Amino acid sequence: MSKIKNNPKAILPKGFKDSDIEILNLRKKVSKIIEKECLKYGFIELDTSTIEYTESIGKFLPDVDRPSGGVFSFQDDDEKWLSLRYDLTAPLARYVAQNYQDLVKPFKRYQSGLVWRNEKPGPGRYREFFQFDADVVGVDSTLIDAELCVMVCDILINLGLNTSQFEIKFSNREIWTELFSNLDVKEDDLPKILRAVDKKDRLGIEGVNELLQKGRKDVSGDFMEGVGLSETDADKIISFITNSNQSNAQMEEFNSYIKNFPDYPIRFDSSVVRGLDYYTGMIFEAELLVDIKNEKGEKIVFGSVAGGGRYDRLISRFGKEDVPATGISIGVDRLIVALNQLDLLDNKKNPLVVIANLDNQNMPDYISMAKEIRNEGIACEISFGSKNLGKQLKYCDRKGADIVIIAGDEELKKGEISIKDLNKGKEVSKDIVDRDKWKEAKAGQQTINRSDLMTALNEILN
Amino acid sequence: MSKIKNNPKAILPKGFKDSDIEILNLRKKVSKIIEKECLKYGFIELDTSTIEYTESIGKFLPDVDRPSGGVFSFQDDDEKWLSLRYDLTAPLARYVAQNYQDLVKPFKRYQSGLVWRNEKPGPGRYREFFQFDADVVGVDSTLIDAELCVMVCDILINLGLNTSQFEIKFSNREIWTELFSNLDVKEDDLPKILRAVDKKDRLGIEGVNELLQKGRKDVSGDFMEGVGLSETDADKIISFITNSNQSNAQMEEFNSYIKNFPDYPIRFDSSVVRGLDYYTGMIFEAELLVDIKNEKGEKIVFGSVAGGGRYDRLISRFGKEDVPATGISIGVDRLIVALNQLDLLDNKKNPLVVIANLDNQNMPDYISMAKEIRNEGIACEISFGSKNLGKQLKYCDRKGADIVIIAGDEELKKGEISIKDLNKGKEVSKDIVDRDKWKEAKAGQQTINRSDLMTALNEILN
Repeated sequence: MSKIKNNPKAILPKGFKDSDIEILNLRKKVSKIIEKECLKYGFIELDTSTIEYTESIGKFLPDVDRPSGGVFSFQDDDEKWLSLRYDLTAPLARYVAQNYQDLVKPFKRYQSGLVWRNEKPGPGRYREFFQFDADVVGVDSTLIDAELCVMVCDILINLGLNTSQFEIKFSNREIWTELFSNLDVKEDDLPKILRAVDKKDRLGIEGVNELLQKGRKDVSGDFMEGVGLSETDADKIISFITNSNQSNAQMEEFNSYIKNFPDYPIRFDSSVVRGLDYYTGMIFEAELLVDIKNEKGEKIVFGSVAGGGRYDRLISRFGKEDVPATGISIGVDRLIVALNQLDLLDNKKNPLVVIANLDNQNMPDYISMAKEIRNEGIACEISFGSKNLGKQLKYCDRKGADIVIIAGDEELKKGEISIKDLNKGKEVSKDIVDRDKWKEAKAGQQTINRSDLMTALNEILN
Repeated sequence: MSKIKNNPKAILPKGFKDSDIEILNLRKKVSKIIEKECLKYGFIELDTSTIEYTESIGKFLPDVDRPSGGVFSFQDDDEKWLSLRYDLTAPLARYVAQNYQDLVKPFKRYQSGLVWRNEKPGPGRYREFFQFDADVVGVDSTLIDAELCVMVCDILINLGLNTSQFEIKFSNREIWTELFSNLDVKEDDLPKILRAVDKKDRLGIEGVNELLQKGRKDVSGDFMEGVGLSETDADKIISFITNSNQSNAQMEEFNSYIKNFPDYPIRFDSSVVRGLDYYTGMIFEAELLVDIKNEKGEKIVFGSVAGGGRYDRLISRFGKEDVPATGISIGVDRLIVALNQLDLLDNKKNPLVVIANLDNQNMPDYISMAKEIRNEGIACEISFGSKNLGKQLKYCDRKGADIVIIAGDEELKKGEISIKDLNKGKEVSKDIVDRDKWKEAKAGQQTINRSDLMTALNEILN
């Protein structure tokens, strides 16, 4: 053991958190439903590494407020820079470029896992979060983008939402290219303009207008720098993003698929831009149309629960020809917050049986009971924590155990044990401090033959 | 899109890898079996954050050959150092210290996930790997350590191993403390001695003897520095680790539990030391007794598949009193290698149906078929990749699809479709380049009414 001079503090860095059983169960439940849909659509799982060469995944993040560009990076022994992945798309592009010859194309994969962003943490905004991605590489036709959007609808419906509770908004980056050719803006400003527009949901049209021109003050008082456009150019952009009648060949092909799903809320919205720099053609995002509240019960601007689009030039960064690619990312953690508020996720606890330990001498009996119970797939603990029965019962209470088995020498010699239904006896057990008092508290308690153990337990649990 | 002057290379840093469907399925299968056992024993899932303050998790790794102490670290904006977790135990100690008042004790948790080590990568040795841990906090009695060892046996048995194919070896760090008090060694040398002994399986007794004294040359030619003990002291240690008759009170209590499982291969081995610096009392590791081969078919020294022990002073680092704690880590990725070689894990593929796309005009028909097939939970793709039927069929072959549906205007008008069992027709399909040739290749092909689609598919798949 190394010597520690100053005790470290038992805290996590800001923006990180531990995940308890409740959130983990919800994550698993939601992931399973998403996975099932992906499998139905022919996607196959592939997990890329969590760490990549920094140059491989680039820095395509929006709103970079950190010197390292929003990415957690460190130098390897050979001084090359490594980064934790900030999304699941950029690493996929590396994977496809690396394995291009061997890949069966179209290549359809899904992946779920953590991504890391070295961004300013805030309430509900973490630097480590869980995403679920589905991608298709090698298909030019936007029919596949449309199918992805339909799949997202199927996923949200299977999660319990109805089609009036969400919508998928889509647009196309190429209509922006056309708009830009008619504006007097520098090429470097283009990503800034898209990022300003991307804030429409949070800041409103007026906020975007301010950001396009001179900038605006945040609620926190921080000044957000503007793009510096003229009023005329800003007006053109504002009128563009409020015009719902735009189209091009890609969108027409997309619509020819979508129209087969008249009940699905998939619609064009020119203000959709997606924050990430690598998108090329079709882009889309899923938004919930229900009120979501924060911990204080205040209604909040919730943002999208899924988003994605074409990234046809992300693979050619590696010196290959352009490879058509498109995908969708689902923000599982954010989705869980919403589904939980809508009461669409139940989270039931597994039953637990505790065997009180009255005397280590009886361990063989306790072990044989534990074996029997566990063999039936029921969770069972022998209470090793304290020799004091009162403390053991308090533990059962606090842990939410369902049944406690109490067996001393006396009973065991007679081939008997006592079992207590804790859900029945919860109220009385508070005052119990020793074995005799416990015996008095008869609620839910019974003495049975040792050989009837499983019958009696199953009766209580069912 | 940012401009890239030099194309990045599409490679991963050394020691990292992507995980394909095969390894992911096996990981899930093995994790599920481990999880099921943990649940039976009353453990509950808790996932700590992947990133911690460096000072919180310390650097207790063995054989640190890197300046950063084997840990991936980076500075936060406030210049504090953060690290990726190198195991699941040190973060748990931080969690327990942080939440001590609110925790129901004994606290039993399990966690599975990636850990990262900034160590020298080698064949089969990665810098990112998957572990499964189970820990108990708040129990002094070594009965719980014994129960953990029994649980590991149950896990290995449930994974398909029999009790002659593995063993759990245990020891106790305190018998070392006693030995050390009789030797003339510096305190700083103690961890070095333990690490030398920990290499017994790989280097043999003679190798350990060399390491305890002047050091030895690695197979790779690298010189491993020795601890620098005298021959006399080294002899005492060698005789200690080959003496199988040692015990103390902790071990006697441990044995009183173990003896209830006479069939389980759990035995004392004084050469067990565990590499990590934070262990205090009981220590144990699970080893396979079967031959494991590398990719070249050569028998290899495989090392332990699970290990753990007491870390009673890891929580008090945070300025608390000592808290008894013990746990076990299972190296899932390594276990999979072994189970796979023993043919104990089957890995079957889900069926896939592909709908050939002969004409975008027929999309509504293709979509309606895809809906029907997916609704039955069967994976189905509409082929958007290429308009060329030959290419679509080649894709089916390479992807391992089971059935392809081919329906042109002609058939659809008549209310008919053609389906082909690809597992039957695999041999002939190689020569097919156009639709007419395909029609000639009758093996496994049939024309059916559109309304009989699901009946026909289920017949082929079952």
